[in-house]
Amino acid sequence: GFAKVDLARTKRNGYPEVIYGEGKTAQQIIDIMYSLQSHQQNVLCTRVSPEKFVAIHQVIKAAVYYAKARCVVLNVQVMATTSTSIAIVTAGTSDMAVAEEAAVTAEAFGNRVQRIYDVGVAGIHRLFAHLTEIRQAQVVIVIAGMEGALASVVGGLIDTPLIAVPTSIGYGTNFEGLTALLTMLNSCASGITVVNIDNGFGAAYSASMINHLSQGGKA
Amino acid sequence: GFAKVDLARTKRNGYPEVIYGEGKTAQQIIDIMYSLQSHQQNVLCTRVSPEKFVAIHQVIKAAVYYAKARCVVLNVQVMATTSTSIAIVTAGTSDMAVAEEAAVTAEAFGNRVQRIYDVGVAGIHRLFAHLTEIRQAQVVIVIAGMEGALASVVGGLIDTPLIAVPTSIGYGTNFEGLTALLTMLNSCASGITVVNIDNGFGAAYSASMINHLSQGGKA
Amino acid sequence: GFAKVDLARTKRNGYPEVIYGEGKTAQQIIDIMYSLQSHQQNVLCTRVSPEKFVAIHQVIKAAVYYAKARCVVLNVQVMATTSTSIAIVTAGTSDMAVAEEAAVTAEAFGNRVQRIYDVGVAGIHRLFAHLTEIRQAQVVIVIAGMEGALASVVGGLIDTPLIAVPTSIGYGTNFEGLTALLTMLNSCASGITVVNIDNGFGAAYSASMINHLSQGGKA
Amino acid sequence: GFAKVDLARTKRNGYPEVIYGEGKTAQQIIDIMYSLQSHQQNVLCTRVSPEKFVAIHQVIKAAVYYAKARCVVLNVQVMATTSTSIAIVTAGTSDMAVAEEAAVTAEAFGNRVQRIYDVGVAGIHRLFAHLTEIRQAQVVIVIAGMEGALASVVGGLIDTPLIAVPTSIGYGTNFEGLTALLTMLNSCASGITVVNIDNGFGAAYSASMINHLSQGGKA
Amino acid sequence: GFAKVDLARTKRNGYPEVIYGEGKTAQQIIDIMYSLQSHQQNVLCTRVSPEKFVAIHQVIKAAVYYAKARCVVLNVQVMATTSTSIAIVTAGTSDMAVAEEAAVTAEAFGNRVQRIYDVGVAGIHRLFAHLTEIRQAQVVIVIAGMEGALASVVGGLIDTPLIAVPTSIGYGTNFEGLTALLTMLNSCASGITVVNIDNGFGAAYSASMINHLSQGGKA
Amino acid sequence: GFAKVDLARTKRNGYPEVIYGEGKTAQQIIDIMYSLQSHQQNVLCTRVSPEKFVAIHQVIKAAVYYAKARCVVLNVQVMATTSTSIAIVTAGTSDMAVAEEAAVTAEAFGNRVQRIYDVGVAGIHRLFAHLTEIRQAQVVIVIAGMEGALASVVGGLIDTPLIAVPTSIGYGTNFEGLTALLTMLNSCASGITVVNIDNGFGAAYSASMINHLSQGGKA
Amino acid sequence: GFAKVDLARTKRNGYPEVIYGEGKTAQQIIDIMYSLQSHQQNVLCTRVSPEKFVAIHQVIKAAVYYAKARCVVLNVQVMATTSTSIAIVTAGTSDMAVAEEAAVTAEAFGNRVQRIYDVGVAGIHRLFAHLTEIRQAQVVIVIAGMEGALASVVGGLIDTPLIAVPTSIGYGTNFEGLTALLTMLNSCASGITVVNIDNGFGAAYSASMINHLSQGGKA
Amino acid sequence: GFAKVDLARTKRNGYPEVIYGEGKTAQQIIDIMYSLQSHQQNVLCTRVSPEKFVAIHQVIKAAVYYAKARCVVLNVQVMATTSTSIAIVTAGTSDMAVAEEAAVTAEAFGNRVQRIYDVGVAGIHRLFAHLTEIRQAQVVIVIAGMEGALASVVGGLIDTPLIAVPTSIGYGTNFEGLTALLTMLNSCASGITVVNIDNGFGAAYSASMINHLSQGGKA
Ligand SMILES: Nc1ncnc2c1ncn2[C@@H]1O[C@H](COP(=O)(O)O)[C@@H](O)[C@H]1O
Ligand SMILES: Nc1ncnc2c1ncn2[C@@H]1O[C@H](COP(=O)(O)O)[C@@H](O)[C@H]1O
Ligand SMILES: Nc1ncnc2c1ncn2[C@@H]1O[C@H](COP(=O)(O)O)[C@@H](O)[C@H]1O
Ligand SMILES: Nc1ncnc2c1ncn2[C@@H]1O[C@H](COP(=O)(O)O)[C@@H](O)[C@H]1O
Ligand SMILES: [Mg+2]
Ligand SMILES: [Mg+2]
Ligand SMILES: [Mg+2]
Ligand SMILES: [Mg+2]
Ligand SMILES: [Mg+2]
Ligand SMILES: [Mg+2]
Ligand SMILES: [Mg+2]
Ligand SMILES: [Mg+2]
Repeated sequence: GFAKVDLARTKRNGYPEVIYGEGKTAQQIIDIMYSLQSHQQNVLCTRVSPEKFVAIHQVIKAAVYYAKARCVVLNVQVMATTSTSIAIVTAGTSDMAVAEEAAVTAEAFGNRVQRIYDVGVAGIHRLFAHLTEIRQAQVVIVIAGMEGALASVVGGLIDTPLIAVPTSIGYGTNFEGLTALLTMLNSCASGITVVNIDNGFGAAYSASMINHLSQGGKA
Repeated sequence: GFAKVDLARTKRNGYPEVIYGEGKTAQQIIDIMYSLQSHQQNVLCTRVSPEKFVAIHQVIKAAVYYAKARCVVLNVQVMATTSTSIAIVTAGTSDMAVAEEAAVTAEAFGNRVQRIYDVGVAGIHRLFAHLTEIRQAQVVIVIAGMEGALASVVGGLIDTPLIAVPTSIGYGTNFEGLTALLTMLNSCASGITVVNIDNGFGAAYSASMINHLSQGGKA
Repeated sequence: GFAKVDLARTKRNGYPEVIYGEGKTAQQIIDIMYSLQSHQQNVLCTRVSPEKFVAIHQVIKAAVYYAKARCVVLNVQVMATTSTSIAIVTAGTSDMAVAEEAAVTAEAFGNRVQRIYDVGVAGIHRLFAHLTEIRQAQVVIVIAGMEGALASVVGGLIDTPLIAVPTSIGYGTNFEGLTALLTMLNSCASGITVVNIDNGFGAAYSASMINHLSQGGKA
Repeated sequence: GFAKVDLARTKRNGYPEVIYGEGKTAQQIIDIMYSLQSHQQNVLCTRVSPEKFVAIHQVIKAAVYYAKARCVVLNVQVMATTSTSIAIVTAGTSDMAVAEEAAVTAEAFGNRVQRIYDVGVAGIHRLFAHLTEIRQAQVVIVIAGMEGALASVVGGLIDTPLIAVPTSIGYGTNFEGLTALLTMLNSCASGITVVNIDNGFGAAYSASMINHLSQGGKA
Repeated sequence: GFAKVDLARTKRNGYPEVIYGEGKTAQQIIDIMYSLQSHQQNVLCTRVSPEKFVAIHQVIKAAVYYAKARCVVLNVQVMATTSTSIAIVTAGTSDMAVAEEAAVTAEAFGNRVQRIYDVGVAGIHRLFAHLTEIRQAQVVIVIAGMEGALASVVGGLIDTPLIAVPTSIGYGTNFEGLTALLTMLNSCASGITVVNIDNGFGAAYSASMINHLSQGGKA
Repeated sequence: GFAKVDLARTKRNGYPEVIYGEGKTAQQIIDIMYSLQSHQQNVLCTRVSPEKFVAIHQVIKAAVYYAKARCVVLNVQVMATTSTSIAIVTAGTSDMAVAEEAAVTAEAFGNRVQRIYDVGVAGIHRLFAHLTEIRQAQVVIVIAGMEGALASVVGGLIDTPLIAVPTSIGYGTNFEGLTALLTMLNSCASGITVVNIDNGFGAAYSASMINHLSQGGKA
Repeated sequence: GFAKVDLARTKRNGYPEVIYGEGKTAQQIIDIMYSLQSHQQNVLCTRVSPEKFVAIHQVIKAAVYYAKARCVVLNVQVMATTSTSIAIVTAGTSDMAVAEEAAVTAEAFGNRVQRIYDVGVAGIHRLFAHLTEIRQAQVVIVIAGMEGALASVVGGLIDTPLIAVPTSIGYGTNFEGLTALLTMLNSCASGITVVNIDNGFGAAYSASMINHLSQGGKA
Repeated sequence: GFAKVDLARTKRNGYPEVIYGEGKTAQQIIDIMYSLQSHQQNVLCTRVSPEKFVAIHQVIKAAVYYAKARCVVLNVQVMATTSTSIAIVTAGTSDMAVAEEAAVTAEAFGNRVQRIYDVGVAGIHRLFAHLTEIRQAQVVIVIAGMEGALASVVGGLIDTPLIAVPTSIGYGTNFEGLTALLTMLNSCASGITVVNIDNGFGAAYSASMINHLSQGGKA
């Protein structure tokens, strides 16, 4: 076919290849889903518009759509859920789409997820109200647009790894998320690593690895 | 002479022309100081290196040097000090040079100044320990480098104007203060306005206007 | 609900949380308006398209739309108007949308507003014709696109704080307002602070704080 | 004193405040070291030039200097070393300074470290020769300048979290590390998070958290 | 007419002027095609949308459309095909449009082409599976978006010239192909030269020159 | 020799090749000066440090140095001076070096020059005091750093061509003159064209052409 | 009304205010046209879409539309045409829209115009074929997109002022005209000044001033 | 040792690993030279300062220094020289250092080299005087700073591959070579590929591959 699906990825990386739906036709996505499914691999497809999902769903009835996350899931076998959790914290309500992409990814990979949304620093008491909950997680994902300051504040308050996701929410000199990204890369708090703008998937992927490590580590 | 010193500025803007010392020779600064002094105007000169001050001081004995601020002051008549104050808050100890430029400027213009340094968000309890003090000021100047998140946090906690000053402290994608500037311009907190990178002088100039307004306003 | 509306903001910051309408659905805006209203808080919602307002208005009849400003206002109790004023000065007619966002915000917060539009430096006599008026304000907001030079010119002529708002009007190397922003940050006139591109709201928020301070200050 | 050392950080974040030596005088560093030491906290100070260390060492004899890493260590009590390890992989020999900053930090925090240097993609067989070793680590730090492609290649071959550190090695359009940073943020491999240019310390800090989690996790 | 078609180009550069279809109307393209054809020159027109081709085809029946490549070809006389080949290698399936522009151009200029698509570094074994094939080519075109690391990896494995084409596939800090371009310009592998983002045509043009040189060189 | 001095330039462009001294050794400059002189051409060499001039002067005694302009002149025959003039206007005293490069160039090319320095918009009355003088020139060069607003203000007040020169005076977001350049390119006043940052020479070169045209034009 | 039309501009600048049509409604344009016309001023309005012109034309029958230039002209009294000319030279056929904006502006201001289009450096013989014609002009406007090299080549061949206009034609790293702009600002040829991207109007405005000066100059 | 010298590179890439001297100590360079020499490999080391060479030469007497190119050569066996040649063309005399890096590299790899320096477009007749010579080469390297237009002009005149090298010669908006790079990437002439700023080595490496291909190609 047109694509060389990477079927050895589970063995090599611990998870099957995840389909990046952006810029692929519904038919291309269907083909790759079939290819993965026929090798007993769970399917996660990100960046799928509602319109594209309609076309996919007509062909693959078992496919499930997570609308806020814009993700499609088709599980051959559901992964066991970890006892420990990943906390997903957002600054505003507008960051929710990216947060849900992270949450659905993390759950698809068998993680327990805590959602703590709309606790940005303009009203910082909202964050403190959820601090105990956040501190219980093995790893925290902080998602923020505009100036992205929430990552530094959370980072200064916890003792676990923090993965920061800048979002493209903002205008003018926000430069479609660049400002939040720069903020997160230059944080004065330690223990923060960063992924690309709006990359909820990537943050969840790393967080899942860390959460699973905390459940046993490698031999 | 080589310069057209703006002697009408006090009348027009409320303060005499302040000398920007960077890139001027000691002799040029001395000439402008004489010119202002001979018109009964107080002199403030910013961005003066210790070496340059030695040369100035040999000629103008009454000139006073504020080393941390890199400012020279020569007062014909000291301004009365306001009863209300300007709070100057910094994130780290490295932001102190910019903070002192602001503090010396504000004091030269007759303002009471509260210095609250090294209370950045990596250890946010340090900020909360000084919140009452900060809230008493008529106007707050927040000075921060690296990611500049302190401006947003303070902005979310006060009900007076906040002037944010990004500093060039940091490395890599800090881009010599650009990241802190962008953070401050995109703050999710309201009531924050911003000046150029390292421009402690400019922040104090505006803050002084505001503090004096609060002592009576215009007719 | 999906959002954690910050109901303590009036107490902490002097004004209730203002809703940023961009990227929110009409339904989300309605929900937040209800939430604020039910706590006796005045509502201001910026960046609302005419289409969205139609949907809001069908549900909340008392909501008022300011079309040029793209703002919705729903007052529980109207604030008293200050005796002193904020002057809003624009360079061109194209800057009017941003200027009206500032004006509606300032008025919603109880300020008297003077509008002085289309007095850019290409025909500088237009500015001088309004200088007395501008000089009477406690604080001046200057709004300009293209090269944004008006801020420096006005700043050199007044003795009150000036808040500069760059607009995204222009083309080519204007870079959607970046040039005007840089101009304003690097002004050779003193007493100028700057907000994000097109941020009429933010400028008015700070200006209102300053204007109110001038009516009495803090104890 | 001039600084508000954050003495609660061990309690809050798991490690004491690490001193960022850049832009601090030897005397300032000595003061902060005394302050930490007097509270029974281990001291790590990064970005210390050999000249500065000479001055520090004259006063604090027990301080140890790691020249390649430009770090100073002063341990009150040595931490136990983990049985599992962090792998530190570099593309070229020029990335060694950043790699050693990471290695010394990780070791100071009680981690076993595997150094695998100079295995960049121009001679990719060198990487494959060390793949088994790399795959045994709980977490891998990849450090690369120029185009930074090594992060993607390693990321595609392992099943543990990878923290990528761009270095400022290169010229022209490398833009002092920006190119390597962008490469790492846009990696087509999953499980990669990124820190600021040349931030070996930050990568090690997060990696240490992950490695320790893998030794037990949080209750 | 409106254009000064460069009819001496075959004599001067070895190939006739190629029409850049973007921003030209169908009628303008038809006019230039007629002008070239009437001088016995083969026509290649790049960047032609399907809609534009419909209009062209109604007038010039012999014109052939390559849909994936968005190219139109109208040959007066078909060029002989080289015995040696150009390899075109892509990182992902999304890079196919650019790859086909390169392939159609190379074939129009009489080159044998090997297409090796979707072998990016996230699953590097796919590349190794095609290495023998790639090594047989006289010149290799590597086409990649996102972080563009494939160019460096291939460059380190071959002994022929490599022309790298960054594509605009990606999001966030990919900056529409800029990241891949920077990666390729800063490659640690030698023998790599680069063309503009998405410029499949330009890469094929140079590759064709090189492949033909290898078939005999200049006297 | 190492250089191919363009001896036909006077014939083709109206002036001999001007030597760009930056990055050339004193010996290289001497060689090119000899070459031009031996063809009866006037010599102008820009960007020459005082140290380099000492070495040049030891060999070519007739060479004259303009220290503020950093230019060397060696005239075979002095050009007649125009009756009309070029006005050179600067914003601050720090822009003087660039202004003098322009003035010396214009004078070397036979133009009468009016110098009007330090009349920036922070004290705009200084400009109005010289407006009659400026309006008498055939062409006006405006030189400004920081935000460069002076070009727009002057451009709005005159009816002759204005050539704007941004200077690298400023700090922070001035970006070494980029801000002033952008201001000038986006001016809301008409009749303004722009040259590279600090390019006093280039502005004078064009201004001289215009001033000479005004003395007669081409047949 | 909403705008303060600058009716003194002819007196001050030699030409009436030109209307910038972009972002104005048809009604706003009509109002300003009426205002200018009622003061016996010629009207030129740039950046007018065909749709907007239809609406203008229904009200102002005498208005003339230049479609390629997207300009509207409404003359109260036609200016006399100069005997000398402005040459307008473009690199490609795609630069024609900007060239026509320049040509229509120059003609509206009473200049004779020579159009020399599609003579870019890829086929440089086309330029040499028109060199005599270009050399006869008093001032030359060079308009080019992509890499903009034509400006340097023409500049090296003429002895009159050259105004360079970068256009936004191109893709990828052309950055919508930025590359051509930078090329023109850094030209190794002398006598070149530059205007904003796509600013055909501005180039013609300055060129007209120069051409008229050459017909007599100022007293 | 500290480095993993890639001894298989001749076999894999056709040439041994070339040492990048920048940022390496003299001792490190000596060690790698020994390592290569002991495996019968020719040594080329670029970016070596005169001071470093003195130290190298004291230990390795046979090492030869090319001062203008800043390269060290140590040949075990001299390669045969091709009958066909590479032309190296520069715009100015200041581009010579980069040109010599290219020339010495090409010669070290067994190519005949034609040097044609200082023929930039400001005096384009100088280029035409050498066109026959340039057209005889199998591949042309064009090296230019400032605006880099020479690449486009040469590219439009030849029928062989052109490799363009932007140099960091220039000031202001040249941005240390970025402008020339962008010019070259956006050339309207075809057949041009580009390398990093100042990368004379890289251009010569690719050119050598092409020139050798033209002498026989691959089986
Ligand atoms: N540190 C500073 N940053 C920015 N502007 C300053 C500073 N110090 C003085 N100024 C202003 O710079 C202007 C003086 O510019 P100049 O004529 O070059 O001396 C005056 O308008 C001052 O108010
Ligand atoms: N090399 C480094 N890079 C980034 N952050 C560091 C580095 N070394 C120490 N830090 C952090 O910088 C902060 C110290 O800031 P300061 O108060 O300016 O000393 C602490 O939170 C440290 O954890
Ligand atoms: N896809 C393409 N990318 C870059 N250049 C192209 C492309 N297609 C054609 N060209 C070149 O663009 C030039 C045509 O420019 P124009 O005169 O605007 O049609 C010719 O020199 C072609 O060789
Ligand atoms: N200050 C200057 N800025 C820009 N161009 C200059 C300057 N001085 C001389 N030139 C031009 O630079 C070119 C000389 O370049 P080069 O061959 O490198 O010496 C000539 O065309 C001069 O007219
Ligand atoms: Mg919220
Ligand atoms: Mg601190
Ligand atoms: Mg107007
Ligand atoms: Mg190496
Ligand atoms: Mg794929
Ligand atoms: Mg001054
Ligand atoms: Mg053409
Ligand atoms: Mg030269």
